[in-house]
Amino acid sequence: MSDYLSTAPYKGTRDFYPPEMRVRSWMFSVIEKTVVSFGFEKIDAPLIEPVEIYLAKTSEEIVNQQIYSFIDRGDRKVAIRPEMTPTVARMAAARIRDLPRPIRWYSLPNLWRYEKPGKGRLREHWQFNADIFGSADESLADLEIIQLALELFSAFGATENHYKIFINHRAVLNAVFEKILKIPGDKWANVSRIMDKKDKVSGEEFQSMLRGEGLGEIQIRELELYVNSGINYLINSSISGENCVKHLVETLEMTHEISGGKIVHYNPSVVRGFDYYTGIVFEIFDLHPENRRSLAGGGRYDNLVTAFTKDTVNAIGFGMGDVTFMDFLKNHGLIPDIQNHSQVYVAAFSEKNLRMNAIKISRLLRNAGFNVELSSGHKKLGKQFDEAHSKKIPIVVLQGETEAQKNTVIIKEMSTGAQQEVAMEELLATLKKTIS
Amino acid sequence: MSDYLSTAPYKGTRDFYPPEMRVRSWMFSVIEKTVVSFGFEKIDAPLIEPVEIYLAKTSEEIVNQQIYSFIDRGDRKVAIRPEMTPTVARMAAARIRDLPRPIRWYSLPNLWRYEKPGKGRLREHWQFNADIFGSADESLADLEIIQLALELFSAFGATENHYKIFINHRAVLNAVFEKILKIPGDKWANVSRIMDKKDKVSGEEFQSMLRGEGLGEIQIRELELYVNSGINYLINSSISGENCVKHLVETLEMTHEISGGKIVHYNPSVVRGFDYYTGIVFEIFDLHPENRRSLAGGGRYDNLVTAFTKDTVNAIGFGMGDVTFMDFLKNHGLIPDIQNHSQVYVAAFSEKNLRMNAIKISRLLRNAGFNVELSSGHKKLGKQFDEAHSKKIPIVVLQGETEAQKNTVIIKEMSTGAQQEVAMEELLATLKKTIS
Repeated sequence: MSDYLSTAPYKGTRDFYPPEMRVRSWMFSVIEKTVVSFGFEKIDAPLIEPVEIYLAKTSEEIVNQQIYSFIDRGDRKVAIRPEMTPTVARMAAARIRDLPRPIRWYSLPNLWRYEKPGKGRLREHWQFNADIFGSADESLADLEIIQLALELFSAFGATENHYKIFINHRAVLNAVFEKILKIPGDKWANVSRIMDKKDKVSGEEFQSMLRGEGLGEIQIRELELYVNSGINYLINSSISGENCVKHLVETLEMTHEISGGKIVHYNPSVVRGFDYYTGIVFEIFDLHPENRRSLAGGGRYDNLVTAFTKDTVNAIGFGMGDVTFMDFLKNHGLIPDIQNHSQVYVAAFSEKNLRMNAIKISRLLRNAGFNVELSSGHKKLGKQFDEAHSKKIPIVVLQGETEAQKNTVIIKEMSTGAQQEVAMEELLATLKKTIS
Repeated sequence: MSDYLSTAPYKGTRDFYPPEMRVRSWMFSVIEKTVVSFGFEKIDAPLIEPVEIYLAKTSEEIVNQQIYSFIDRGDRKVAIRPEMTPTVARMAAARIRDLPRPIRWYSLPNLWRYEKPGKGRLREHWQFNADIFGSADESLADLEIIQLALELFSAFGATENHYKIFINHRAVLNAVFEKILKIPGDKWANVSRIMDKKDKVSGEEFQSMLRGEGLGEIQIRELELYVNSGINYLINSSISGENCVKHLVETLEMTHEISGGKIVHYNPSVVRGFDYYTGIVFEIFDLHPENRRSLAGGGRYDNLVTAFTKDTVNAIGFGMGDVTFMDFLKNHGLIPDIQNHSQVYVAAFSEKNLRMNAIKISRLLRNAGFNVELSSGHKKLGKQFDEAHSKKIPIVVLQGETEAQKNTVIIKEMSTGAQQEVAMEELLATLKKTIS
């Protein structure tokens, strides 16, 4: 038996050492730059929420089996957030009359679910969230969120060969259920869940599951026709005049005009798990042959704030998790080589005056904007070069007793070994030239 | 009774709306720029840790009364991290033989403690942490961490009028207890806790508490002399030859040379709450008359990794919480006015072709690097100007039917109301000029 505590991170979670953290920071910075260019403003909120805010609308699977909930020392039943949308709705509701509209918010929270860890599925993940509340015209907000998704993927160099966006509309789905398929309202949730699984089961299993919900053979054939057809099924149907159908058709037309028609597609099987969606819903799929899965998704959820306030406000949101998105970027070779940011290593000798000089040189360089690592104090200079080398720092600056007396420094380029001695007042200019 | 869920954040925590979030992001970015200029690399770790990692060294008050711990669905006893140092030690220990040394890591985690919320004290706060492991010469790492603290405060415009740094040495304290005051080892912790409270109680209370620990009158007088004297007490004492005293004296001398001698001071009462400190310890104090309190602190903790591995490595760290630091910046007027990042508002008319043009103009501007808010679709142009105004966006771009036919756009400056019509191919150049 070991007497030592485990050094492993908690099951289903990740430690981010500098190499992984650099990639995560790069990923988030590309996301943030893009979303800020759309006028979204960053928000954040506490990690813990009262568990009630998840009971109404978050899926039952999450609340019953996956939520991290506990009783706090003040006897409150609380949860570590499993998703961000209820929190965003709470914050919007709290100031719904004061906030300038439309509200465009984004966040990058970590979320927790008690999952069986597996590919693309961890207990802690970070999720990019973007939401628009209170647009004067909802259809513009719908377009904007889809366009944001397109520009985000484009900012990472992703193209039509890497991903697709599938769009559907919850109200259209409901209208098809009610007016064409004549399915009783209490079966809609189960039937839509079966539709969501269509591509994962055989045609016979699919029919058998639908029979299990009490659908007759004619209903099943019609439903199969619906899920296997394009948008023309709706355009030629008895519900073609409904606003939701017109809105879906127009949204598709306009996104095609934005994206060239190759990335965004209509897909009647896209349902989204959360019960709070009311209008446009969409999912982003990875096209990589070994990773065909949903990367991100979102939709309109106009009623979520009504859990918190009698005021109403329209809302559409979009979420994307870091685990699956990182897999996407890796599999498609879209992650650049991101190095340590340090540019200069300042060597230090043991003598007190030389050591103080090394500290002062480091400060001079930092104040001029360089990222500088000071030697950790090896007695042998060779070891200090090794230190610079192991950190991949391209340049070493040093001042020994001889140089100190002349008020000069030596600049060594690690890649070539080339050295030059320059006057102290030339140091900054020479370094700027050497580094650029 | 209201039927609505509360919109308040969980007790003792904060929602960050865009104005607060902008300030927090600014604060973190200044911190990150500075710490990266010292060669520190960012890390992160899961929010939840096995509770054991806190039992050994974290203060009893935190573990018994303040930690958020619970049993997970897999029957593991876990905690939401109350501090970051044990996690950093765990991560360093896990790869202690592979990581290039010295290890310079920083992080910006949120931490949780079940506290009675009050000024500068919340249940969730963010804490900047910086640590150096495995320096060839520890004394250089000690200096570097103190210099980092100085440069951080300086990066925010803080001066000797705003804060002071007090330094002490745990081994020196122990040597004084053992060899000068002859206090039994089992009393050291309690006596040091009393010393830490010295400035908050009267002289009589102070003496009475020491008597309560069994100290005699001669011991109490000597201890008072020690805590009220400067570094010369140690230099002239029987322990002046000990390495820890020499190291403390030299560290003070060198930091004075770095900082000009006005910010960094020796203070024998600085103890630091955590039991894991072994060498240099320091605290940063706010000098504002209404907020005289500790803002940040740190110290050497060479033994913490030994809970995880038989390898040893020297370590020094520094932590600063966002709540007290934000108070510090506010009270001293060091927070700049940070606005929404949006630069251009693109108005949109209802006609489908004009709306599509507005979307395309927005995309053109974003791709050129501008942050652009597209209209949310008000039918009246006046309402759209109001929208731009309420978001403090300086410029509105619009294209009506007339302009569309001529392939021009109108650029309106919100502050003056001045308008100009330019050809579409002049738009980017004109905007660049107008904004700069």
